[in-house]
Amino acid sequence: MSKLLAVGTVAFDAIETPFGKTDKILGGSGTFVGLAASKFGVNIGIVSVVGGDFPQSYLDMMNDNGINTDGIEIIKEGKTFFWSGKYHNDMNSRDTLITELNVLEHFKPIVPEAYKNSKIVMLGNLHPLTQASVLDQMTETPKLVVLDTMNFWMDIALDDLHQVLKRVDVITINDEEARQLSGEYSLVNAAKKIHAMGPKYVVIKKGEHGALLFSESGMFYAPALPLAEVFDPTGAGDTFAGGFCGYLAKTENISFENMKNAIIYGSNLASFCVEKFGTQRMEELKNGEVEERLRAFKELTQFDIVS
Amino acid sequence: MSKLLAVGTVAFDAIETPFGKTDKILGGSGTFVGLAASKFGVNIGIVSVVGGDFPQSYLDMMNDNGINTDGIEIIKEGKTFFWSGKYHNDMNSRDTLITELNVLEHFKPIVPEAYKNSKIVMLGNLHPLTQASVLDQMTETPKLVVLDTMNFWMDIALDDLHQVLKRVDVITINDEEARQLSGEYSLVNAAKKIHAMGPKYVVIKKGEHGALLFSESGMFYAPALPLAEVFDPTGAGDTFAGGFCGYLAKTENISFENMKNAIIYGSNLASFCVEKFGTQRMEELKNGEVEERLRAFKELTQFDIVS
Repeated sequence: MSKLLAVGTVAFDAIETPFGKTDKILGGSGTFVGLAASKFGVNIGIVSVVGGDFPQSYLDMMNDNGINTDGIEIIKEGKTFFWSGKYHNDMNSRDTLITELNVLEHFKPIVPEAYKNSKIVMLGNLHPLTQASVLDQMTETPKLVVLDTMNFWMDIALDDLHQVLKRVDVITINDEEARQLSGEYSLVNAAKKIHAMGPKYVVIKKGEHGALLFSESGMFYAPALPLAEVFDPTGAGDTFAGGFCGYLAKTENISFENMKNAIIYGSNLASFCVEKFGTQRMEELKNGEVEERLRAFKELTQFDIVS
Repeated sequence: MSKLLAVGTVAFDAIETPFGKTDKILGGSGTFVGLAASKFGVNIGIVSVVGGDFPQSYLDMMNDNGINTDGIEIIKEGKTFFWSGKYHNDMNSRDTLITELNVLEHFKPIVPEAYKNSKIVMLGNLHPLTQASVLDQMTETPKLVVLDTMNFWMDIALDDLHQVLKRVDVITINDEEARQLSGEYSLVNAAKKIHAMGPKYVVIKKGEHGALLFSESGMFYAPALPLAEVFDPTGAGDTFAGGFCGYLAKTENISFENMKNAIIYGSNLASFCVEKFGTQRMEELKNGEVEERLRAFKELTQFDIVS
């Protein structure tokens, strides 16, 4: 069991979908990564920042799920990061209604002593310099550094992104972002160019179309499980990443073969995340349900051709 | 080895892609279905119509590939169906530049005597009444009827489409068309509604995102093989359908389990089709290449989780 450190946002979300809307509920990339990884019973610490308005009950829930929250700084006089968005009828696109950075604006992650020797580090979607500052604090070189990013950082901080990518083993990114970062339309060629920037593994997230994992010599595809109802897609990508890291931390095996299993588990957990608003489904999720859904993934993908 | 009958277009295409452009070359859904199915060494007959301008050499090529062309009517005083299109840089969308129906406008398919007892019938993308007229000519009820259609027929001949669907076992359709036909956004729910219209199996083609096969109780996913270069997507969907039918005809097994293999083979053959303009790659394709690519599909999709 490897120690896992994840840096990311812990936030309030207000979400509107064709199925309903919420008031401010718990959200944030660090929250979803933590909840997903916690399903593997690993030692996971979250590094983030919240304001004085952040309820203790949310921290208690995370602790109850085995998530160490010592690295979540509380700025009493500040307000927690708040995002509000509205999904379109197709659930694949959304409009951001409100983004209040609040305490996130001057976020300087501080890694707790106990997590400075974490074997796996997940750098959530933040400014590349913020991501780099987490690596700078590690006292031992992690076995695996996973980085998530987005087009916004390519637009405003591309040089910084290139610098931190040199220190990264796995990048998770969506298909359009992979094309933007590489200048290549074909995802095969995009992955090749991104390998050359540093990451030996490239995970391309395609939402309802699944995810592709590229190593320098192989590729693997994990479908998204087709669902009758997608209730709220918020956090699905972070849940995917948390499941990926959590599985690798549990199995202590970062081979390409085991990464295949890790993205299947990531896709598995993400398929639950979207079934209810916010973190609700992930909070109530039982291990038995995950194993049952693993069978559904096998039925969906495994074939036996005798040629 | 089951006898296979395919009705579809045999046509001239003129294609422009970011990689180049062609003069009038051989195209048409029937052509691509036939070439794909012929890779399985099955007895396949094509029913179509061409004009006096259609070169004998194209018919010779089909015959050399084991395709029976007795059902391709030649209207000496007419001109062959001609389609011209230009693909955008992303290769996923295209503009139709020219559509000259010519002899296709009054196409009345005539099934040759020798194919009226075919076990598998593939109804290419034509007017639903034209598709129905093929089934009317069969002297024995086929074991499996596969129908391809598109949004155009839903717009102008929906009632006729519903009538023929009652006689169909497998429908192949793209994701947007499945949503249009069913009125459901979720593909799981769309497939359920389409099952109720007749087809026990629904194959949803998602282009570069692969294909989904739904039975009334199960689902299976065949990815498209990620390629470094997609040269010309024309005919990929028909090649997929031809591979699907050809494999089922060869193995004489129309169980859901075997249909899984069939869509993997369909996706396999389609991945070759796009590598060169028109039918070129399919004409030169060797069985050894197909088997080698099958290994690539296994590496792409197969995992072994010990939980």
